[in-house]
Amino acid sequence: MGGNTFGQVFRVTTFGESHGGGLGVVVDGCPAGHPFPRARIAAQMARRRPGQGKLTSARQEADEIQVLSGLEPDTDRTLGTPIMMMVGNTDARSRHYDDLAELYRPSHADYTYEAKYGLRAVAGGGRASARETVGRVAAGALAEDLLAALAGVEIVAWVAEVAGVAAPAVDEAALTREQVDAHAVRCPDGQVAEAMTAEIDAARRVGDTVGGVIRCVARGVPPGWGEPVFDKLTADLAKAMMSLPASRGFEVGDGFASTRLRGSAHNDPFVPEAGTGRIRTTTNHSGGIQGGISNGEALRLAVAFKPVATIFQPQQTVTRDGQPVVFQAKGRHDPCVLPRAVPMVEAMAALVLCDHMLRARVARTDGPRR
Amino acid sequence: MGGNTFGQVFRVTTFGESHGGGLGVVVDGCPAGHPFPRARIAAQMARRRPGQGKLTSARQEADEIQVLSGLEPDTDRTLGTPIMMMVGNTDARSRHYDDLAELYRPSHADYTYEAKYGLRAVAGGGRASARETVGRVAAGALAEDLLAALAGVEIVAWVAEVAGVAAPAVDEAALTREQVDAHAVRCPDGQVAEAMTAEIDAARRVGDTVGGVIRCVARGVPPGWGEPVFDKLTADLAKAMMSLPASRGFEVGDGFASTRLRGSAHNDPFVPEAGTGRIRTTTNHSGGIQGGISNGEALRLAVAFKPVATIFQPQQTVTRDGQPVVFQAKGRHDPCVLPRAVPMVEAMAALVLCDHMLRARVARTDGPRR
Amino acid sequence: MGGNTFGQVFRVTTFGESHGGGLGVVVDGCPAGHPFPRARIAAQMARRRPGQGKLTSARQEADEIQVLSGLEPDTDRTLGTPIMMMVGNTDARSRHYDDLAELYRPSHADYTYEAKYGLRAVAGGGRASARETVGRVAAGALAEDLLAALAGVEIVAWVAEVAGVAAPAVDEAALTREQVDAHAVRCPDGQVAEAMTAEIDAARRVGDTVGGVIRCVARGVPPGWGEPVFDKLTADLAKAMMSLPASRGFEVGDGFASTRLRGSAHNDPFVPEAGTGRIRTTTNHSGGIQGGISNGEALRLAVAFKPVATIFQPQQTVTRDGQPVVFQAKGRHDPCVLPRAVPMVEAMAALVLCDHMLRARVARTDGPRR
Amino acid sequence: MGGNTFGQVFRVTTFGESHGGGLGVVVDGCPAGHPFPRARIAAQMARRRPGQGKLTSARQEADEIQVLSGLEPDTDRTLGTPIMMMVGNTDARSRHYDDLAELYRPSHADYTYEAKYGLRAVAGGGRASARETVGRVAAGALAEDLLAALAGVEIVAWVAEVAGVAAPAVDEAALTREQVDAHAVRCPDGQVAEAMTAEIDAARRVGDTVGGVIRCVARGVPPGWGEPVFDKLTADLAKAMMSLPASRGFEVGDGFASTRLRGSAHNDPFVPEAGTGRIRTTTNHSGGIQGGISNGEALRLAVAFKPVATIFQPQQTVTRDGQPVVFQAKGRHDPCVLPRAVPMVEAMAALVLCDHMLRARVARTDGPRR
Repeated sequence: MGGNTFGQVFRVTTFGESHGGGLGVVVDGCPAGHPFPRARIAAQMARRRPGQGKLTSARQEADEIQVLSGLEPDTDRTLGTPIMMMVGNTDARSRHYDDLAELYRPSHADYTYEAKYGLRAVAGGGRASARETVGRVAAGALAEDLLAALAGVEIVAWVAEVAGVAAPAVDEAALTREQVDAHAVRCPDGQVAEAMTAEIDAARRVGDTVGGVIRCVARGVPPGWGEPVFDKLTADLAKAMMSLPASRGFEVGDGFASTRLRGSAHNDPFVPEAGTGRIRTTTNHSGGIQGGISNGEALRLAVAFKPVATIFQPQQTVTRDGQPVVFQAKGRHDPCVLPRAVPMVEAMAALVLCDHMLRARVARTDGPRR
Repeated sequence: MGGNTFGQVFRVTTFGESHGGGLGVVVDGCPAGHPFPRARIAAQMARRRPGQGKLTSARQEADEIQVLSGLEPDTDRTLGTPIMMMVGNTDARSRHYDDLAELYRPSHADYTYEAKYGLRAVAGGGRASARETVGRVAAGALAEDLLAALAGVEIVAWVAEVAGVAAPAVDEAALTREQVDAHAVRCPDGQVAEAMTAEIDAARRVGDTVGGVIRCVARGVPPGWGEPVFDKLTADLAKAMMSLPASRGFEVGDGFASTRLRGSAHNDPFVPEAGTGRIRTTTNHSGGIQGGISNGEALRLAVAFKPVATIFQPQQTVTRDGQPVVFQAKGRHDPCVLPRAVPMVEAMAALVLCDHMLRARVARTDGPRR
Repeated sequence: MGGNTFGQVFRVTTFGESHGGGLGVVVDGCPAGHPFPRARIAAQMARRRPGQGKLTSARQEADEIQVLSGLEPDTDRTLGTPIMMMVGNTDARSRHYDDLAELYRPSHADYTYEAKYGLRAVAGGGRASARETVGRVAAGALAEDLLAALAGVEIVAWVAEVAGVAAPAVDEAALTREQVDAHAVRCPDGQVAEAMTAEIDAARRVGDTVGGVIRCVARGVPPGWGEPVFDKLTADLAKAMMSLPASRGFEVGDGFASTRLRGSAHNDPFVPEAGTGRIRTTTNHSGGIQGGISNGEALRLAVAFKPVATIFQPQQTVTRDGQPVVFQAKGRHDPCVLPRAVPMVEAMAALVLCDHMLRARVARTDGPRR
Repeated sequence: MGGNTFGQVFRVTTFGESHGGGLGVVVDGCPAGHPFPRARIAAQMARRRPGQGKLTSARQEADEIQVLSGLEPDTDRTLGTPIMMMVGNTDARSRHYDDLAELYRPSHADYTYEAKYGLRAVAGGGRASARETVGRVAAGALAEDLLAALAGVEIVAWVAEVAGVAAPAVDEAALTREQVDAHAVRCPDGQVAEAMTAEIDAARRVGDTVGGVIRCVARGVPPGWGEPVFDKLTADLAKAMMSLPASRGFEVGDGFASTRLRGSAHNDPFVPEAGTGRIRTTTNHSGGIQGGISNGEALRLAVAFKPVATIFQPQQTVTRDGQPVVFQAKGRHDPCVLPRAVPMVEAMAALVLCDHMLRARVARTDGPRR
């Protein structure tokens, strides 16, 4: 009921506050017999980690994942039982937060948590910290490894816009994570990456922050994944992305731009694929999803992230007693969450798709489509 | 597992195909003792109904809701047991659909349903029809009545954009459904409503269709509703809206526009409210949700709907055997789904909020915040 | 949250009061492509129906199932979408219940429903009536048809004890429903059936009621169904059976008798089956379930049903205001629920097993065991 | 989907194998603001622990619970966020298990796990070990502390029968855990406890094992907890208990004995309580539950545990290749699980009741009954 579980078949439950004993995730429903992908998990954890450069928070977190259950000792294969993965909290400087206990930071979750629970974990923002995504990213990397092994699915996200600086369209059919990581801001276009970096630096210099848009593509999703009504792929992806800290908007396919097309321009004509006879579409305005179910084309989506709430300028706010007060933040914080959010978006996409890959196995009497 | 259930405490399960024996919903978890709001349900059903004018489909559906369970016979109060509401299917001209069995209409769910299930209900699009929302709207009207009675919440949606024609900002604090319904297109601004209508008519005349954006505000939501991680209000609202037929995008608060603001401009300063001492914000870029939990300000969201897929122009597509074929639609269809989608958006917002109103009752040892 | 849904993949939601507009069930998650088993459903509904003879209530209910959704019109195959099945309420003589509104019948749910909800449906016991099982039996018959078609599973239950009169052990490997139905009391042993009938008649003559035990066997369940921890087959079967009206006890395998055996006598030795090489056990004290998961032997379980609460003798009770009063029941009621409970037990067993048959499809990377 | 989560509002997810990195539990949905009951948890963990005396396994496990999340640092109050509790695995002598990899122990889960998953954790029985209950007992102690604080509920279980030696009826209204713990076998009757101990010793001396029955009473449950259909208290308690390792039977109230009473003897007459006017029953054959909902009387239940499967006598079984082989167990194992199962039964009862205590808060428009 607390809302810390996601997924129906491949089901993750995360736990942990920013500055408590540790954070992690329990994955229930991981199919048995899969070689545990330690390298892939480590790679995505490293991409998620703060302290990767001047663009991100200075907090140093090793974020080395411990796996305490669910693996066969010698072979490292999944047992089918819950996989618990966690990281300890080591570099937690709680003293930075002592003076936050008595006020509510603007556009943070301080006030809303207290309104809901009557108390809150002050240090590090508790569970509202982006550090909560540690468990998501670890579980998401496991999910994408299953997707790759069992269905040939590949997921790639990138920073498409920062502070209004937008990247041109990329070759979504070929884009790789290596290309995305070529620039610290994780925009694959070098020139735009530089302009984005300049915007981030400009904001940082005045103690301010910026937001932006991440785009994501999932290639290789076969036709037939997704449920037709409430658990449409569009709906589950939307929930997944809008559960990320700081997300404010979501689109699939042409998204808001589709509203300015006529049906004749937006519809994706079906054609037989030369050679294979597979049914394909000549355009992909739908973003690979029709009626909530995948049609075999690439899934295309975007997520809007607001500017980071922690700015280093004086701000008007109130104390817990409702008295006006001026608040001035200290400590270490990303001026822009976007580069680190790239693996988070990939993780959430993977969690949704892995869940629906498995759900597709029970949709028909004759088993899943092959 | 089929994904036809939504909500955790106030839980709805819908059933029914467009042209089967009937459609409806089972509401499980409705609190006992509430006077059943027949008038409110009828009103929202009437707003959802096709055949309201030349802007919408010519299909005449009485859509009178039968309630078969869950009410105390004499008093019409809710019993706490499941409330089953349904409408029969009377005006179903299945013959229009006979020739659709052997091909896949572009950007419909024909192909994806068959890919998933191996078969599909051809007539009327089966469960992919917008008629599936009958149960949602009925249950949503019940939910909004509970919200009004138990918490003073009001929900109003309106058509904010059609085919690129956008309404100016409205007074979200005062807007009423009466104002929205003053124009058939459900845009409260008379001049813009006319321009929208012209766009719809222009598209219809050439057998084409248009899309648009609906905005929605929920007033009176107290601080403290929503869960902090996966079941953030933002996430559950996103899932709710993106589960509606033809939805392609979702925003909360400033949405995608927020990505172009700096933190110093986007943050909502807290202030004590004069007179009451309640904690308020001076701006509402956050759309009433911070860290996934309501902060007491109005909830503000938007949903993008693509142009209707059924156009009356010849289109290229393929048969079930994968052979190219030209398809020409017949029958009755909305050229624009937006006016009828207004009560659907309200219904989904109500389902999410009613669920979280009840979930807030179990968040603290001392019961919900009063 | 109201607890009217059962199952994870094959998921049923029931609705309806004894004397409202109707009762029924929505089945979500039924695999697509299955020929809808109208005859099997009608047969089990007929076995569940009251008015089958002098042993059961005189109420005449046609209980003809209407199916309003989820089937392909011409082929009657399942679409994969929700299947809604219901029966109307026609023979409801509510006047019998008028004088019950102001008191609480002993060992009925009158008082507890009011304690929970603040009100209750008086006529016919509302949702606490055994009539609530209409939806379970219909959905269970669909489930057992899937089990038979996809896995060769057969389920047979019988009345093993009434009022202390116990049937001798039956040949569980061969017992058929025809043998069970050879006697109205649904005990396959003719002599014992007569003795049971005599007990029921003796009780009825003095306005009293009796209870008993139903046993059930499921043959053909392959090894590997069930989950190891909370969703053990033992646990899910226990919940299923203990959710039936009037059930008071549950056993699997040797049950309570196993507590008086030593491990050396209770353990089931494994042996290779001659000819097939399949792994079998020489005894089946475990009832086909070890560690919560099926081992390929027959599932064996028992359910205890208390005597019917409605007796036709004066009883001491209290009014809604807490005043002592003597209550004397009128109307029509089974003196013994056991014969009609046989298809209910079969239905609940089928719902559990069908759910776990489908869950087994997602337990391994390489799909379900074949 | 893996079945490692229990509860709807107060929701526990357990993880861990007997000999992996650790075992534990995530509690999601614990109300905020509750003082974390470290002493109560430690006490129940100590009662669950093996190595308490010659009656139980010689394995020494400190089983000290670490709490890594969900608590306010200084006050130790619950935050409302997930509480992760775990114990490391320290005294794991995996070498005892090396020779088990290639055969299936009779009446263990070796074969069924492999049938389900294709592999299994050999050492210590993996997740099928009774050690899996560590997380349940810790979470259960938290649940019973909430029950005590918020509703005044007390839960006491005891060993009522071992190897056919049955304790006489105890004073269920007054029995305390201290009385239960007065004898190592956890039967409050001294003489019977001695006879039980003699049976256990007799079995142990010949390398054999015994089973038995645990009874449990929950006092102070108010009227109105439980849901009427699938989530009856009877059903949820049955599932909870039948999910414990080695459980084979469950009863509530008079259980199987009720089937031999007539309705006139079994019905519990209602009376006004002298002084308070509260509605009470003069007898409690129903075990405090009518129609699945509590009636304010003490909840009474029983659980049957089969004899431990690990015996120290040669047994016939098969290898993984299906070859006959004689198996002779080594290592350390309880000859009787009953004494240690007492806190497990209490934990599962507490998990069910705490969940339903919170669920009762959403059943009525006017909040829970007070």
